[in-house]
Amino acid sequence: MKVAFIGLGVMGFPMAGHLAHAGHTVCVYNRTPAKARTWLETHKGSMAETPAAAARDASIVFTCVGNDDDLRSVVLGEAGVLAGMQQGSILVDHTTASADAARQLAAEAAKQGVQFIDAPVSGGQAGAENGVLSIMCGGDESPFTQVSEVMKAYGRTIERLGDVGSGQLAKMVNQICVAGVLQGLAEGVHFAKQAGLDPLQVFGLIQHGAAGSWQMANRHQSMVEGRYDYGFAVDWMRKDLNIALSEARRNGAQLPVTALIDQFYADLQRHGAGRQDTSSLLQRLESDNNH
Amino acid sequence: MKVAFIGLGVMGFPMAGHLAHAGHTVCVYNRTPAKARTWLETHKGSMAETPAAAARDASIVFTCVGNDDDLRSVVLGEAGVLAGMQQGSILVDHTTASADAARQLAAEAAKQGVQFIDAPVSGGQAGAENGVLSIMCGGDESPFTQVSEVMKAYGRTIERLGDVGSGQLAKMVNQICVAGVLQGLAEGVHFAKQAGLDPLQVFGLIQHGAAGSWQMANRHQSMVEGRYDYGFAVDWMRKDLNIALSEARRNGAQLPVTALIDQFYADLQRHGAGRQDTSSLLQRLESDNNH
Repeated sequence: MKVAFIGLGVMGFPMAGHLAHAGHTVCVYNRTPAKARTWLETHKGSMAETPAAAARDASIVFTCVGNDDDLRSVVLGEAGVLAGMQQGSILVDHTTASADAARQLAAEAAKQGVQFIDAPVSGGQAGAENGVLSIMCGGDESPFTQVSEVMKAYGRTIERLGDVGSGQLAKMVNQICVAGVLQGLAEGVHFAKQAGLDPLQVFGLIQHGAAGSWQMANRHQSMVEGRYDYGFAVDWMRKDLNIALSEARRNGAQLPVTALIDQFYADLQRHGAGRQDTSSLLQRLESDNNH
Repeated sequence: MKVAFIGLGVMGFPMAGHLAHAGHTVCVYNRTPAKARTWLETHKGSMAETPAAAARDASIVFTCVGNDDDLRSVVLGEAGVLAGMQQGSILVDHTTASADAARQLAAEAAKQGVQFIDAPVSGGQAGAENGVLSIMCGGDESPFTQVSEVMKAYGRTIERLGDVGSGQLAKMVNQICVAGVLQGLAEGVHFAKQAGLDPLQVFGLIQHGAAGSWQMANRHQSMVEGRYDYGFAVDWMRKDLNIALSEARRNGAQLPVTALIDQFYADLQRHGAGRQDTSSLLQRLESDNNH
């Protein structure tokens, strides 16, 4: 199948690669063309000068960019994908963006007979590289069924949660839960150190019980060591929490602790820690500068 | 070995049973004697009228009661276990209590040649019944080694974290982490419902990823159904968080979200929900009465 992939970041680069390996004819576009050239060194396919050019003739166009603004630009811009897509083709967006942006793009796409699926992912860079992402989709059944077959190239769990925007809403649930887990874990590590315990022994002991979490299993060691130069960045988390909090304002959900943790991440950004892993909430607790 | 078990609550009842099944000669004491009689209907052993009487001749005395005050009463009271324990015997406390209480009891015990191990557990009622508890111990190496052999009757993971009080401090780390996980999960379920998603589908999808936790796997369904008539009660959690927050005041740890969640649990208590499972943080978010 002819497909286009827009955005070769840490997620998109390997995802586009899995599509090529699965035998699809992939045309890629990246804002920085050097990245697209690097991709072509190790994958069969082609690259285009604009999103519109990449999208031409594609049955499915995938986007995976930074945020709502980037997304609107590569989709609705003068040389955006909608300027190139044909009637009957499908646009799949893997960006973690707002449900509002998803609904807007779906409406614009519909005007020219293009169907839209929002499809944010979880599983991180490792999940993308190993092709085992969880993909949360929103949109109509028929295009979902068509694209889910293709997304199996990099998705292990692919589900449709409802209408356009539902995938983004589910991703926000994910991020809300992650925030609570991480702050609890940060306070736990901080307390353990202040109390004079060996934190590695404590977490080795409690991680299999009722306090256990993916984050505890995978992050307590690096947190104890004060290593934050990897993983999912504070800046990205803040973008996601902003989406969640804006959506909550609309739907009436109360997110008191999510809102507070968002402020803690703002502290970290203010102190130049925006590129650190989200588990650096611990660093904030340990700092004297957090007020 | 002759042992005594003081406190036949939901945890102590099956724990004392495992000791009897392992071939130890168990004398039990419970504040409400009817519970001790019930225990004797299905277990070999004996019961005593007072903690002191139960403790007489025992090589190890186990206590598992409600809180610091109960603990001081059954250990230091006129007919408390120390009034009956012999020099060279060991007192093991399974209550989740303060590290301060542990240190006080250890000091009092030492005056009469009795060694003390604080040994709070995690794993809940099911863990106690199935004999697979995690036991976090504080105290000297030699008595720890002796009692850990005996505790294998109901413990799967038994570790010494350091001096007297260290077991209690580790248990507090556990509860701090649980609190963060539960509030994040409650906000996630609340958001999912307000956003019109099917929460069971969302959590079925995200529970195996970076947002996953023991609490998400084991509690999201009952939370979505609004069932809270089981599990670990809000009243008990408030007791534990009070211990953690008091200790943090001493050791200088900052626990901003733990402190906030403690206040949310206070809301629930004020509205008569103290006996509900700790996952009822969701009910508070859904209520109109939480301010």
